[in-house]
Amino acid sequence: MPKFARVITIGEQELEWLSLGAAVFGAGGGGDPLMGTLMAQQAIRTHGPATMVGLDTLDDDDLILPVAMVGAPTVMVEKFMSGDEGDRIRERIENEIGRKVAALSSAELGGVNGVIPFAWAATSGLPIVDCDLMGRAFPELQMTTAAVAGVDINPVVITDERGNLVSFTTATPKWAETLVRTVVGAMGGEASMCLYPMTVAQAKQAAILNSMSRALEVGRLLHEAEDDPVGALCAAVEGFPLVVGKVTDVNRQTTEGFAKGSATIEGTGADAGRTLRMEFQNENAVLFEGDSVVASVPDIITAVDVHTARPIVTEQLRYGHRVSILALPCDPIWRTDEALAVVGPRTFNYDIDYIPVEELNG
Amino acid sequence: MPKFARVITIGEQELEWLSLGAAVFGAGGGGDPLMGTLMAQQAIRTHGPATMVGLDTLDDDDLILPVAMVGAPTVMVEKFMSGDEGDRIRERIENEIGRKVAALSSAELGGVNGVIPFAWAATSGLPIVDCDLMGRAFPELQMTTAAVAGVDINPVVITDERGNLVSFTTATPKWAETLVRTVVGAMGGEASMCLYPMTVAQAKQAAILNSMSRALEVGRLLHEAEDDPVGALCAAVEGFPLVVGKVTDVNRQTTEGFAKGSATIEGTGADAGRTLRMEFQNENAVLFEGDSVVASVPDIITAVDVHTARPIVTEQLRYGHRVSILALPCDPIWRTDEALAVVGPRTFNYDIDYIPVEELNG
Repeated sequence: MPKFARVITIGEQELEWLSLGAAVFGAGGGGDPLMGTLMAQQAIRTHGPATMVGLDTLDDDDLILPVAMVGAPTVMVEKFMSGDEGDRIRERIENEIGRKVAALSSAELGGVNGVIPFAWAATSGLPIVDCDLMGRAFPELQMTTAAVAGVDINPVVITDERGNLVSFTTATPKWAETLVRTVVGAMGGEASMCLYPMTVAQAKQAAILNSMSRALEVGRLLHEAEDDPVGALCAAVEGFPLVVGKVTDVNRQTTEGFAKGSATIEGTGADAGRTLRMEFQNENAVLFEGDSVVASVPDIITAVDVHTARPIVTEQLRYGHRVSILALPCDPIWRTDEALAVVGPRTFNYDIDYIPVEELNG
Repeated sequence: MPKFARVITIGEQELEWLSLGAAVFGAGGGGDPLMGTLMAQQAIRTHGPATMVGLDTLDDDDLILPVAMVGAPTVMVEKFMSGDEGDRIRERIENEIGRKVAALSSAELGGVNGVIPFAWAATSGLPIVDCDLMGRAFPELQMTTAAVAGVDINPVVITDERGNLVSFTTATPKWAETLVRTVVGAMGGEASMCLYPMTVAQAKQAAILNSMSRALEVGRLLHEAEDDPVGALCAAVEGFPLVVGKVTDVNRQTTEGFAKGSATIEGTGADAGRTLRMEFQNENAVLFEGDSVVASVPDIITAVDVHTARPIVTEQLRYGHRVSILALPCDPIWRTDEALAVVGPRTFNYDIDYIPVEELNG
């Protein structure tokens, strides 16, 4: 994959690409990036393009502020942000910490949070750092490489479009998840957030580096692919095409802010006769064939359109959809015992050991 | 009523008296002061007595911090505070506002919050100011004289025994109520709080003055009363004895953190043949005789033991209880149209106009 320059200008076209890449790494969750892309494009039209920079363009002592939307991305479609959320969060954190923020970053590459930080970056004039804290999408605040590395999640600041602002200093990242989630519910299901404020030196240890430019490149490739887009995508992300087939059943329940359920895929063509079940908890969590695990979290299971390789988020999965199910190896940072205690199959209530997708499908 | 000196030492004995007085003004709600009294007495044994001072002993520019427990007082019996909540809240507010707190105050005279601030005062060495923001107990954060006077509720800070701390800057006091309530639920149903930080000059306009020393005096009187305690209490608080009778029915539901229901009182003696219904929403809200209103919020409806005049909180009302139902005129500050929009019968979903108890029973 060609390397991007260390300072990348993010205009409307780049956001289209990022949007596609963020959906690939979203594992079916993280929210459809469409609304976030439109909002970031609007901010760029108003304030000019955003800038994405490598960590090494900053001083080790500079303060980075990871930001994200939190809540149900489906709510975003009806409950718009007022536009000043990013500035309000940043000003608050600067007052609490007593330091200026040098750059924003995305807390979560996958889904809507791969693009929405660019709206706030364009508005504030701050650059976005080329890294994130998941390398994919995960449903909860403690499921970050920063938590695994021991970076303090506090203070977590959230705000809504009415101007309500809440700052949390919590005993553990899991307590932050619990308390933030309940306030977001009371705010109407969605809010803007920052968490794990950290120095550049900390980010070099605690973040997944160059993940944003990787998503940008994958999105551009997908945008431009003509022959065999699925094959081109797999080559770009070192992905495994696990099955090609037709969605024959989708069960989906929205409970306590989570979209939980499963989709059944009946193989077609060379996969005729195979039946797989993809279970999701916001993101796709485990792909089963009978009782056998074909892939599982933290590896990235993504359904793509069999012809265009465009990723399909779980809320768009429908009967009859012709799909290819891919699994992408997660970042190696997630494969230690310590990290698997935070994001492994057991944290999603599956009593199975994690086996890397390349071992399961080698 | 004799006036207390402007600086009053609050030891274990004074807390007993305050506890009784706070229950009288609690209108059946605000939580049984027992646990709060024990905690404050423990703090006084450890750190020495607390001090209650008049507002005029402080400079107009001094910062006062109203504090309270928030949540279900019944939870306090099983979920103890760790003891450092008061200091943690105060330190946080001093950092946010950039000023030192000169004195604490009780946000709510009635019930447990009439005594618990003395635990934090004894621990911190700060005085308690002789005023509060309700002059009784009310269930929600916006139901304060401070809100009516236009004092900003922000920042509201809450903390729990685990060390979780959440700071709210909200669009309206009602939003503070909504967001704080949901976090308190997630914290386990109860937390320690400060709200409406204000200067002494603001408190002179926005608080109910000398309410704490009044409760102390009422409690002492009740403690010492021998002949006709109910009559002595009514004389001390300008109260109206509305009915003497027996509790013959109690309906109580705990929903969304509220104890809602009603008690039926069948008159005895001179009141034989009368039947009254006391409806409560944490606090006693309206006393009906048939369809007629005998007393309503914001006036203070309190059930007391017919022999001892000891107040009975709604959760202790039982079949067979011999009670005298009293109504105390609320502070005049609550009787403007503006104030009644915040605490009048309609805010409790009764479609009736407020008529002062002395007009209804003159």
